[in-house]
Parts: sequence; structure tokens; C-alpha cells
Amino acid sequence: MSEMKKENEAIETNYIEGRNAILEAFRAGKTIDKLFVLDGCQDGPVHSILREAKKQDTLVQYVKKERLDQLSTTGKHQGVIAVAAAYKYAEIEDMFKLAEKRGEAPFFILLDNIEDPHNLGAIIRTANLAGAHGVIIPKRRAAGLTPTAAKASAGAIYHTPVAKVTNISATMKELKDRGMWFVCADMGGEVMYRQNLTGSIGLVIGNEGEGVSRLVKENCDFITSIPMNGDIDSLNASVAAGVLAYEIVRQRLGVK
Amino acid sequence: MSEMKKENEAIETNYIEGRNAILEAFRAGKTIDKLFVLDGCQDGPVHSILREAKKQDTLVQYVKKERLDQLSTTGKHQGVIAVAAAYKYAEIEDMFKLAEKRGEAPFFILLDNIEDPHNLGAIIRTANLAGAHGVIIPKRRAAGLTPTAAKASAGAIYHTPVAKVTNISATMKELKDRGMWFVCADMGGEVMYRQNLTGSIGLVIGNEGEGVSRLVKENCDFITSIPMNGDIDSLNASVAAGVLAYEIVRQRLGVK
Repeated sequence: MSEMKKENEAIETNYIEGRNAILEAFRAGKTIDKLFVLDGCQDGPVHSILREAKKQDTLVQYVKKERLDQLSTTGKHQGVIAVAAAYKYAEIEDMFKLAEKRGEAPFFILLDNIEDPHNLGAIIRTANLAGAHGVIIPKRRAAGLTPTAAKASAGAIYHTPVAKVTNISATMKELKDRGMWFVCADMGGEVMYRQNLTGSIGLVIGNEGEGVSRLVKENCDFITSIPMNGDIDSLNASVAAGVLAYEIVRQRLGVK
Repeated sequence: MSEMKKENEAIETNYIEGRNAILEAFRAGKTIDKLFVLDGCQDGPVHSILREAKKQDTLVQYVKKERLDQLSTTGKHQGVIAVAAAYKYAEIEDMFKLAEKRGEAPFFILLDNIEDPHNLGAIIRTANLAGAHGVIIPKRRAAGLTPTAAKASAGAIYHTPVAKVTNISATMKELKDRGMWFVCADMGGEVMYRQNLTGSIGLVIGNEGEGVSRLVKENCDFITSIPMNGDIDSLNASVAAGVLAYEIVRQRLGVK
């Protein structure tokens, strides 16, 4: 019941409008995904908001008054509207702690620019049920924990840590130093059944249209592939994530 | 290019308005998913349309003029609007032929009331790449081959036969007589890795919220389950279909 209430509150407060409300949200440590600012707006309070946005590495988009009016639900945006994360992001440390608590080798899912919030939600749902310890998403050009993603996760968002990082490649390098290795799915890789996917693993899922980006792919230790017996090019991104995550589950269970 | 054109045409002609156009569509053998008819409309041409609709087992919904005006894009609906299938449905026979042509045991995916066209599209996409020979969907209370489903299928709809049947259970009984057996996913089933999923198989996927219906479940030879290591209840329906379809692929490939 309280979980339900929490969900509704989060959905209702996804857009924050007005200068004081936004400044307050930043100062309270709320994660702001994006900021819409009236083009040409330069006064003191807006400068304070932009300073906070810079600290948090929030995306800022300058827009015309018509766009703000359109986005506004209160009609009182005062030249600025913030898109708050519907849910609280976790730290990668939380994922390691969860793995340790369960006595398991870390298993993270990294999303290299998944853009569709339905896919993001479905992947968090899969991560939860496949026993992954967390999902890592990039800050830019990707779906965040919006109400749509939250709904598509079927509640998994309350259980599975989701961390947002500035640069997926840089994060992979750091995690490699902690003994993790990375696999991504791409054409031409060794078929997944024949690859050892046990141990401390990061599964990388690429963008819906473009797949895994070059730099991220270069940072992967292995490229794997799902057997394809059809006429088209690729599975839906959340289906591919599910098939690969469950191949990891199978290998972890030692099923032969 | 011609494939592209075909897709656009299909999307554009999804709604058919006006008495002659609809009667013509029926007589040309076009699949009409649904018919909206003005409440109280009883004249000759409408009777002819309703007669064709009955022959095809098309769903008929009586609505008020306001609703028709709202649905209309031409403004000239003459009291009747038909929702045409964006793509042509296949016959189950086409699926057997495809299996035979490939020299494989039949592998069909049956959807027991998938309601979300995105899920339907993603499942057809999976069916294509997992080498299934077709997808069977019910006539009532389920997503059909709409433009949304077509788009989500990423073109798989042009390659993988999709058949629409009046009653999934009845179809299962007929297919059993042809040597097929059926498996559905549900809680409490034997974990999928330990079940023999080779041979002539029909994989049954249940509704997004309710799962597999009682009658359909009773007609399944086996219940199987995907291992669940998390806090929530179930995977997204198209992800579950993907994980199960690929377990069938693994077993067919003889991977151990």
C-alpha cells in the first residue's frame, strides 16, 4: 500500500514547474533529468538554477515560450520546467553490495543508449527476475526512469538498482579494474551457447537502431551473438536483453 | 523499395470508410478486423455489409454518430467504418508448408490474448528469428495485425505467417491430431531446461495481465517455467516469449 502511494506520488511529481520549486528540488538532492529554460531568460534565480544544473550535469534545453506553455500543467512555469526522475537513481556501489549480500558474482546490465522507455522498463524487469544486481544507463541521449519506464518495469524499479553514469566506456574501464568483464551482443560474435558467460559479468545492450557504439564495443572483452534463423536483422532490444540475460542464468545454474 | 511502398500503402489503407468501399473490400477478400456501424442504421447497403461481416466473423460494434465522426478521416463515413487488417493473415496450412519446405518439425507460437500491439509485433519478430514457422492469434479480445504491430515486428510480418483463429483451444485440439504438442509457461511448471522441448511444438504465451487462460492451459501437454530469481511476478510477455522460444532453439540445436 505504501509502495503504491510512493509510486503515485512519484508519477505526479515528475514535472516540476516554477523557480523556487525547482531550486528547492535541486537543493534537496532530487535527480533532475532535464531542464527546459525560456530562451533568453537571464535573471538571478534562473542563474542559480543553471548553476545547480551544471553541478548535477543536468541536460539544459532552451526553448520558446510556446513550448513551455505546452509542457506546463500548472500554467505557472515562470520560464523554467524541470523533468525530475520519477525514481531515485542508485550508485554502482549499491549493486556491488547487493551481489555481496547474495553471495554472488556481480552481474550488471549496461544499456548503451536505449531510447524507448518501454524497453528500459522491460529490461529492468528482466534484470530483476534474471537475478542481475543492477542496471547502468548513460546520462545523455537515453531513456531515464520516467513514469513510463517505471510502469513498464512492473515494480522492478523498486527492487533493482539503476545507476546513471556520464560515460559508459569510462565506467566499464573502472569496473574492469574491479575484476568485471564485459560482453556485448553483435553480429559476427561467437554464438552465446559456446561462450563462457559465468563470473563477474557486465552484459552490454546496444541502442534500438544503431546497436552497440564503437567505443563501447572496443571496451568489451567478448562479442557474442544470438542464433538468428530468420529473414530480418535483429530482435527487439528488450527481447535480446532477455534472451542473453537468461543464457547467463543458464550458465550460472550450470544447466547442460 | 517495393517492400517499403507496400508497407506504406498498407498503413494508409487501414481504415476504410463508406458503404461501397467497405462492401468492395469484403468482396475482394480483404480481412476486416472490425466494423463500426451507426447505431440504428438499418438500410439495404448496411445489411449487405453486415451479411459479409457475419460470413467473415468480423467483430461488429454499434456506435453513436459522434464516435464515427471522431474515427473518420475523410468525413464521409456514411454510417460505417471498417478497420482492415494492415497485412494479410495466413492460414495454418501455410505454416506447415513452411516447416516442410525447411525440413523441420513444426514450431508455432500461439498467443492466448496478447493485447498490446507492440508485444504482438515483438513476438512476430522473435518468431521470425527463432525460426518458428508461424504465429497463431485469436480473433477476439486480442491485438491484430495493425500498423503498430507491423512496425514493432520490424518487417518480420512480411516473412512469418500469422493466422487468426476463432478459438485457440479448438485449434490446439486440431493440431494435436496432426502430431503437435503444446507447452505453456506458468508458475509451478517444471523449469524449462529440464523439459524436452524438441519435436513438433506449439509454444503458448498468455495474456499480459492474466497469463494463460484455464481452458487453454488444460489443453497444454506440459507447463514449463522460466527460472525467477527476483522480487516481482513475471517478465514482459514478449520477453518471456523470447526466452522460451530461444530455449526451444537451444534444444533444437542440441546445445548442452
